Amino acid sequence: MPKIRRIPIDTHPENTAFLLRHAGGYSPEQFQALRKIRITGSCGEILATLALVDDPALLEPDEIGLGEQAFRRMGLPEGEEVEFAQALPPASLEYVRRKIDGDTLSESELNAIIRDISGHRYSPMEIGAFLVACASFMSTQETLAMTRAMIDVGNRLHWDAPLVVDKHCIGGIPGNRTSMIVVPIVAAHGLMIPKTSSRAITSPSGTADTMEVLANVDLTAERMSEIVATEKAVLAWGGRVNLSPADDVLISVERPLRIDTFEQMVASIMSKKAAAGSTHLVIDIPVGPTAKVRSQAEAVRLRKLFEYVARHIGIVTDIVITDGSEPIGRGIGPVLEARDVMAVLNNDEEAPEDLRDRALLLAGRVLDFDPSLEGGKGYARALEMLASGAALAAMERLIDAQGRQTLKLEPGHHQFEVRARSAGRVTAIDCHLIARIARMAGAPIDKTAGIDLFAKIGSQLRAGDPLYRIHAGTRTGLDFAREMAAENSGYELR
Amino acid sequence: MPKIRRIPIDTHPENTAFLLRHAGGYSPEQFQALRKIRITGSCGEILATLALVDDPALLEPDEIGLGEQAFRRMGLPEGEEVEFAQALPPASLEYVRRKIDGDTLSESELNAIIRDISGHRYSPMEIGAFLVACASFMSTQETLAMTRAMIDVGNRLHWDAPLVVDKHCIGGIPGNRTSMIVVPIVAAHGLMIPKTSSRAITSPSGTADTMEVLANVDLTAERMSEIVATEKAVLAWGGRVNLSPADDVLISVERPLRIDTFEQMVASIMSKKAAAGSTHLVIDIPVGPTAKVRSQAEAVRLRKLFEYVARHIGIVTDIVITDGSEPIGRGIGPVLEARDVMAVLNNDEEAPEDLRDRALLLAGRVLDFDPSLEGGKGYARALEMLASGAALAAMERLIDAQGRQTLKLEPGHHQFEVRARSAGRVTAIDCHLIARIARMAGAPIDKTAGIDLFAKIGSQLRAGDPLYRIHAGTRTGLDFAREMAAENSGYELR
Repeated sequence: MPKIRRIPIDTHPENTAFLLRHAGGYSPEQFQALRKIRITGSCGEILATLALVDDPALLEPDEIGLGEQAFRRMGLPEGEEVEFAQALPPASLEYVRRKIDGDTLSESELNAIIRDISGHRYSPMEIGAFLVACASFMSTQETLAMTRAMIDVGNRLHWDAPLVVDKHCIGGIPGNRTSMIVVPIVAAHGLMIPKTSSRAITSPSGTADTMEVLANVDLTAERMSEIVATEKAVLAWGGRVNLSPADDVLISVERPLRIDTFEQMVASIMSKKAAAGSTHLVIDIPVGPTAKVRSQAEAVRLRKLFEYVARHIGIVTDIVITDGSEPIGRGIGPVLEARDVMAVLNNDEEAPEDLRDRALLLAGRVLDFDPSLEGGKGYARALEMLASGAALAAMERLIDAQGRQTLKLEPGHHQFEVRARSAGRVTAIDCHLIARIARMAGAPIDKTAGIDLFAKIGSQLRAGDPLYRIHAGTRTGLDFAREMAAENSGYELR
Repeated sequence: MPKIRRIPIDTHPENTAFLLRHAGGYSPEQFQALRKIRITGSCGEILATLALVDDPALLEPDEIGLGEQAFRRMGLPEGEEVEFAQALPPASLEYVRRKIDGDTLSESELNAIIRDISGHRYSPMEIGAFLVACASFMSTQETLAMTRAMIDVGNRLHWDAPLVVDKHCIGGIPGNRTSMIVVPIVAAHGLMIPKTSSRAITSPSGTADTMEVLANVDLTAERMSEIVATEKAVLAWGGRVNLSPADDVLISVERPLRIDTFEQMVASIMSKKAAAGSTHLVIDIPVGPTAKVRSQAEAVRLRKLFEYVARHIGIVTDIVITDGSEPIGRGIGPVLEARDVMAVLNNDEEAPEDLRDRALLLAGRVLDFDPSLEGGKGYARALEMLASGAALAAMERLIDAQGRQTLKLEPGHHQFEVRARSAGRVTAIDCHLIARIARMAGAPIDKTAGIDLFAKIGSQLRAGDPLYRIHAGTRTGLDFAREMAAENSGYELR
């Protein structure tokens, strides 16, 4: 039996195994034909893509090399003996083929697929095939079944409270960082709101990225529990607690292919919310010409799909359809967004009004879940929590509990102002494009990079007035973003 | 600028590039996020998937490692300086996304996709997405446009003759090795039939695999021309002459996903035939419960699609719908099939009659393309060429011209007979399963492996009578195949 050797090569997110091409005994050409092998050790098995090595210095004939990811997943020390064989394709691929042929799949079939996906038994190609087949048609029942399957394969957080509230936005609107205002308002009122968020994948910042400017967000489930016990809230990165491992794998393929169907969105969001232990949930669906949802009719279809799945998995859900025609707030990118959030919580006169209004609207809807509040009084209570400074105090306690960042970051020092070429009134701002320019500047990896907006829809401008300022931590980032903005600023004036 | 270093690791079919994780200057984390880089050298560029290396012994900080496939495709010596950058996704992916959304694509859009696919600019995931989107809906116009695009990106063979005939079977029927009989019959008559064939991908043998038992099939375009000039024919492996590089890439993804739509099939076959310079083509569509086409109605739809595309790319096509309810001939696997073919050409009394009949039917249809033959006389002429020994003589000359194999292979010495469990008449034989058992035995890589059938549909058997004999060159192969046959022999008796 061959012995494991660790090969210091990282092929994330794929497992790679290495064999000497001319090693005796095996027939690597046969393995090559299939490309995938199953490696079985004393404590489990992994699948890996096979690479053949021609240099005997890298590998002995009686060794099987594992890349760093495969080595970690195998979980055995170097030199351990393992067996390997051609990996048979997972049996659930048969269901994927049926889905490609247009079939509707049963709950147990979708379960099998999701189990294999979260177990890293599908190649990106196979995942892509599954997702595209689903994108062409997926029934509401299939969406529900997929949500349940995704919940089943992940961890589940448990909270010691009858009412565990949450708030989620489907995304797509730059600067829309309401969660970091809603959470302290709700916590100040006294409802439990343990919020797990994602990092940005295609946007300039996720809530976890922006919160990380102020506090540590990489918390274990245990630490989250402790914080929630005292603060009623947490604003943590969800990736650490493995809530929906299937979704993490699916997203790694969805994003490059830009598959963003309502069905995938609902299954992804609702599986994470159920796993995070939420009982009551407000969902924000922004609608606008450059938002994810482009018409009221589409928003209604999405609302119904959310409601159907939420009802069947037992989460009380309130859907809010909001204006998604332009970015919210002024700052886009982690540091700039954190600045806006703290300005709202501080009741600064300069704080962006639209961000404050949106946060209060959503916080009010969350507070309306509280049976002890008189019907419809949620908004007033939210306003009270914010205006009184109670929300700010709750946020400061939360930051301290999670671990305050000692390094105070400033917006990137490389700056450039994009200006109006002619006079006019701003009639449209392209959310997509603004997000892409902010990413070009370096956000979210460069936390100081982003865009600071000076004009919103309705602003009356003279030629030469600034539209926004690009910030970047590096000269290259600024140049990239500047070049893109020069081609199209994302603003329409008339 | 970094220098190229060849890394002795083969990650076929993907290009892999290696960077030291902690090399100064770059930000590998950023590259990692995108996973793909574009490497530009003095004579072209390649795209490669990035792997990070943690061992400075493998790579210097100022080096970029290229796996063997990437090194070959880059075509530069070690130590040459190259530039690299994040690879932007190919622009044509936008069309793939539109296809996923249900759009019909234009000829120029499909052209762009196929160009990028044949240029190895798509990942398997992206190819999978494109294929599945096409599988859900593809118009006849799109099928034609895709065929044309696939022709455009490949080489094209030119023959000095007004009539260049060919014969193709869509596959799926084990043992159906008629091409090796049709080609010598047609050549003996005097029509030009330069036949390029594939190796088996999911079947136990392709025509190229079986022909290789008798002669060299790995011929350059120049050598093919020389042979055709004297012999009027050739039986070569098509992979060598790069007829449809796009199809080669598509197939590498279609097969594992088992995407086998009529549209892909037609585009694949017709693009290869046009590239091979055929002017007249007979296509064999076997229909049967375990064949690729399962009903007469489906066969008619496929026939029409072939006819539409053939007419527009200017190939005269005659479609023959045949019985595909069971394997053809007796032997399955390269050596056993070659034996049957030679028996038919030799006019042996023992030669399998069904293989002989099928080959004569198809050869007759091919000869009916000859304007100098009286209408409908093709079959009689084919029979004459076979019975007179002219076809055998043509085959022997062809074998000598291509290069006769000096090693005469025998059917694998590890053998096992699968027997009828009870008495009865054979009512069905599962083509799929028989093919899988033959592959388990080792075919086509082990040329001596395969199955020798003793009973066909209609055979009256006693309990214990042999159904077939499994041959394998290795004990392991025999055991695998035997195990599979024990579960289900593939035969139904009643």
